[in-house]
Amino acid sequence: VGGLSGSQVLGVTSVVLTGVWMGHYHGGFAWDGTEQEFNLHPLCMILGLVFLQGDAILVYRVFRNEAKKNVKVLHGIIHLLALIISIVGMVAVFDSHRAAKYPNMYSLHSWCGMATVVLFSLQWVMGLLFFLFPVASSWLRATYLPVHAFCGLGLLAMAVGTSLLGITEKLLFSIMSSYSRFPPQGVLANVLGLLLVCFGVLLCYIITREEYRWPPNPEEESLAVHFKTLTEGGSPTMP
Amino acid sequence: VGGLSGSQVLGVTSVVLTGVWMGHYHGGFAWDGTEQEFNLHPLCMILGLVFLQGDAILVYRVFRNEAKKNVKVLHGIIHLLALIISIVGMVAVFDSHRAAKYPNMYSLHSWCGMATVVLFSLQWVMGLLFFLFPVASSWLRATYLPVHAFCGLGLLAMAVGTSLLGITEKLLFSIMSSYSRFPPQGVLANVLGLLLVCFGVLLCYIITREEYRWPPNPEEESLAVHFKTLTEGGSPTMP
Repeated sequence: VGGLSGSQVLGVTSVVLTGVWMGHYHGGFAWDGTEQEFNLHPLCMILGLVFLQGDAILVYRVFRNEAKKNVKVLHGIIHLLALIISIVGMVAVFDSHRAAKYPNMYSLHSWCGMATVVLFSLQWVMGLLFFLFPVASSWLRATYLPVHAFCGLGLLAMAVGTSLLGITEKLLFSIMSSYSRFPPQGVLANVLGLLLVCFGVLLCYIITREEYRWPPNPEEESLAVHFKTLTEGGSPTMP
Repeated sequence: VGGLSGSQVLGVTSVVLTGVWMGHYHGGFAWDGTEQEFNLHPLCMILGLVFLQGDAILVYRVFRNEAKKNVKVLHGIIHLLALIISIVGMVAVFDSHRAAKYPNMYSLHSWCGMATVVLFSLQWVMGLLFFLFPVASSWLRATYLPVHAFCGLGLLAMAVGTSLLGITEKLLFSIMSSYSRFPPQGVLANVLGLLLVCFGVLLCYIITREEYRWPPNPEEESLAVHFKTLTEGGSPTMP
């Protein structure tokens, strides 16, 4: 429980710090093709791809005693929300770049970010097909589940890493000459970067540790048996 | 086996690309306080903290049939080599900064990098005390082992992330005005970044997947029993 509340404190603080950074130091938010539209990009990406993606992963640890089906649907819905918010964040950067005639997709940040969003979308569609629609056989589901979980944590790590690249780019583009004199904006953005790393590490820790505790959960065990029965019976559907 | 050779191809290619980047585009290497001394920084960090740290982790998968004690010592020696090389890389950057009168430790890259090296040193000392010296009880060893393994993968991820930050910093400091026109140096450095991400992801995949296959290994099983006997017997030493 300490780990879970800690992750929420880190996640909310990160989103708030991003808002303060863009709001206080870069003129706030708007949707008009100016720098204020660009400012929505970091806010949306950190809210969507870091905080909400992390919380969508955590639902399996928070709602351990709910019906599995409901938790799955919640997991999918929060991820969908994360995807929509991050697409808004992507549109914001492309749109503000077009208005300012800045080129796109040349930096390591943009390459990593695009890869993360495309793979995240793919992961969401695969999750929908394998786990919510009765398309995949239970054998396929059981085989894909650890891959899905690994890729999920990998995508969260990529989202955090890409955020740090974005923080560095933004600082060097806007305050390169004063960055080395530890201005408040530079320190605030560095601290934001460290908080994002802590959020990612804590989340991976909670998920991988709790995994060891899955078998003793009675609901899990009955589900596992159910799985096995279905596999042996050869029925392709599963509640 | 495919995964292991793939990881070596990715790791060696990353080190070579770093050498080509610094050697061909930034004037090569020297130890004289000039930019050529700085050039040793990326090379040493990627060789030490990414490639060698990764390979030190992999020894447990490569030498599965060797005596556990020998593999442990090899794991420690490769990590020590990684630590020494990365300290050389750190000295290179501080020394070249001092000669050029550049300030230190203000960027997110430097904060993340310093945290990684300090935590890496701590992890190495803890590993030595817990697993190679007969100081910790077998109960302590067994409790610390999953934490040690988790922190190891976390440190590798931090090393990769910090490398990407360094790549972005170096590109923006040296070719900011031309970066957006896709110059060969920019593309080479971006590709290097993606290769490092692939190395990190593949390595984490190999380690977490193979973990499921540990119990069936007879040596492991006998060791586990041995562990249990020792714990119950209360003897503090273990071969």
